[in-house]
Amino acid sequence: MPSQHLDALIRELARLPGIGPKSASRLAFHILKMRDDEVARLLSAVAEMKKNIATCSVCGGISDGETCSICADPARDRATICAVEEQKDVLTIEKTGGFNGLYHVLGGVLSPLDGIGPDELNITRLMDRCRQGAVREVIIATNPTIEGDATALYLSRLLAETGVQAMRIAHGIPVGADLDFADSATLVRSIQARVKI
Amino acid sequence: MPSQHLDALIRELARLPGIGPKSASRLAFHILKMRDDEVARLLSAVAEMKKNIATCSVCGGISDGETCSICADPARDRATICAVEEQKDVLTIEKTGGFNGLYHVLGGVLSPLDGIGPDELNITRLMDRCRQGAVREVIIATNPTIEGDATALYLSRLLAETGVQAMRIAHGIPVGADLDFADSATLVRSIQARVKI
Repeated sequence: MPSQHLDALIRELARLPGIGPKSASRLAFHILKMRDDEVARLLSAVAEMKKNIATCSVCGGISDGETCSICADPARDRATICAVEEQKDVLTIEKTGGFNGLYHVLGGVLSPLDGIGPDELNITRLMDRCRQGAVREVIIATNPTIEGDATALYLSRLLAETGVQAMRIAHGIPVGADLDFADSATLVRSIQARVKI
Repeated sequence: MPSQHLDALIRELARLPGIGPKSASRLAFHILKMRDDEVARLLSAVAEMKKNIATCSVCGGISDGETCSICADPARDRATICAVEEQKDVLTIEKTGGFNGLYHVLGGVLSPLDGIGPDELNITRLMDRCRQGAVREVIIATNPTIEGDATALYLSRLLAETGVQAMRIAHGIPVGADLDFADSATLVRSIQARVKI
């Protein structure tokens, strides 16, 4: 390499997910050509985010302060909580614009083989929220994997004791998809979970 | 968005080439989870590269000092110069390990429509190097585009005056490829440029 500094940057960039050696090299050359103020803005965006981001004391999601903007929003339906695995799931659901309740970020799913039990997840705080009275329904939106389904079942049993209704997001044929392209597990589930027209 | 800081970072990352909104979001969440010392190392790699990188006074490529490590390497064959469009082409050729000469980075190709004439490229310095006597051959490795071919022709005429042999990299069927998959322009060129067995 003609420059150790460039080489070092390429190696650091290649550690990021989804960025291989070729992409890292292309990014490094792009950064090399970027104006100094553009680079400064990128670096400060990273540093500011790392310095200022906090965990919301209500939902366990990320936040700029004590409470995140979703939990603090008075226009949100406080009777419905959607429980998700990760923060990014909140953003995915928010982008649809089709849900107006609150969220709860579990921080993962139950996975005994990986040493992740109920104590490793943000479950106690979810039960606290449910016992406070305002919540009527928890929609469990963990992924339809073995661990995600097991976590949903576990949560539904805990929720039964609090009197809050546990719900699961529907699984079936994606809207607009052809039956031909559906895998058989999804197809069976869509038949089992059939709904009245 | 639950965090303005995260939103700002995603927007900055999405400006980078080859990174769309989804990749930017995934990268931002990855950075969020990275340890502070890992983030500091990434940020300092960018800052150090921007601060310390210079242009080699000989070949016009990037360098950590006055002269790049390739131009300064005494084991290199000083009679052969490979002229390339961009710095990244140097790295691509270096990776093959099949070339032991020096390089010259032109900084682009002649493109009158874009206002890029000989004065905008690093050509004067290439001619200076050729007139110093040690160079016997310049291999022109610009891309096989109209502009790249025109630049090669232009350089070969200039080089004729200096007595240095101008050469062009060979174009033809890639090694290991099937004739069926070659485009006709490449196939015609491979027949015209046939070599004795």
